[in-house]
Amino acid sequence: MESQHPSSHDDTCNPGSCRKSHHPEKVKNNLISRLNRIEGQIRGVKKMIDNDIYCDDILNQIAAIQSALNSVGKILLEGHMRSCVVERLQEGDLEVIDELMITIKKLMK
Amino acid sequence: MESQHPSSHDDTCNPGSCRKSHHPEKVKNNLISRLNRIEGQIRGVKKMIDNDIYCDDILNQIAAIQSALNSVGKILLEGHMRSCVVERLQEGDLEVIDELMITIKKLMK
Amino acid sequence: MESQHPSSHDDTCNPGSCRKSHHPEKVKNNLISRLNRIEGQIRGVKKMIDNDIYCDDILNQIAAIQSALNSVGKILLEGHMRSCVVERLQEGDLEVIDELMITIKKLMK
Amino acid sequence: MESQHPSSHDDTCNPGSCRKSHHPEKVKNNLISRLNRIEGQIRGVKKMIDNDIYCDDILNQIAAIQSALNSVGKILLEGHMRSCVVERLQEGDLEVIDELMITIKKLMK
Repeated sequence: MESQHPSSHDDTCNPGSCRKSHHPEKVKNNLISRLNRIEGQIRGVKKMIDNDIYCDDILNQIAAIQSALNSVGKILLEGHMRSCVVERLQEGDLEVIDELMITIKKLMK
Repeated sequence: MESQHPSSHDDTCNPGSCRKSHHPEKVKNNLISRLNRIEGQIRGVKKMIDNDIYCDDILNQIAAIQSALNSVGKILLEGHMRSCVVERLQEGDLEVIDELMITIKKLMK
Repeated sequence: MESQHPSSHDDTCNPGSCRKSHHPEKVKNNLISRLNRIEGQIRGVKKMIDNDIYCDDILNQIAAIQSALNSVGKILLEGHMRSCVVERLQEGDLEVIDELMITIKKLMK
Repeated sequence: MESQHPSSHDDTCNPGSCRKSHHPEKVKNNLISRLNRIEGQIRGVKKMIDNDIYCDDILNQIAAIQSALNSVGKILLEGHMRSCVVERLQEGDLEVIDELMITIKKLMK
């Protein structure tokens, strides 16, 4: 709850300023390579539509992308909870729960 | 939509060979422009991760992409049902239901 | 496929009157026993809440019920497609697709 | 937050023993009445199946139950986060995140 975070903290979680993520490099690389693959899949679907590929095959590809995107969401959510949510709660900032619930509800819909 | 398909059309829906989609140009353009937007959103998320943008903002973007992708899936599914599924069923090819159920189950999971 | 449905048919699928389901007895029994189990699970959750059982355990039970209910939905959808949807389409009633898409969109949301 | 919980507290959240929920009476009543309604809906679906009601109507009812159950899950999850998760994190028990992530993944699937 104390507000004198030293400057080295200004990119990490503290009440009011927890506006940056800080995934370890390994997690970041994992996420980026998953997103690169998803981007390629989206481009693939565009080509399939352009080439009149059979819809059922395209729909299966869409289901695969949804599942890949869902995995990215879970990794991000877990990272968020383990860093920012934990730190803000430990500092007594309960508003992080309001924000988190709004986000989880969107992801659960 | 006229019924005198020249031979060049034997790649459209008929029992056994319904292995092409045939969305009207307007639907195709709609799908492609939605997919372009999704591709841009994916690239945006990669940039957000690279720049350590706050996770909660990224998660909200992920939820928006999921919803956009879901819409693409529904448009494709509807087009598929109105063309290929209808034609194959009207020709007595019930196997199209087996295939459709497998796909819908993936999309409903 | 003939269109002169005798009166004994008026509870099955034909254009305009397909307002009854006709699952085989075996499927019906399967569905009823699944729904009995789900009803028991709902009652179990009420007891858990009454007895202040740990929320995480209740949430896991909720996830199990969702999955069981999803299975019931898939069995019903498959039965619906294999009977009513097929018959109405084979009789040229394309409106069944409008109706089916509305329902599938609700189940996919 | 101190560790000498008087005996009256041994059913609430503290490291290791947070094995009880403690929803306020008002939330409990809300949840129970939602679950009563869901139980009634499940019984209604059984009657619909018994009476060969049109599948599409039953499927719409299933979608409504899924949505009602989803709401119960969100209320429970929010209550869980605001009580037990917050308390355990403030006491430094990070394992609650492992458990919570497993549960959220089930609810998000």
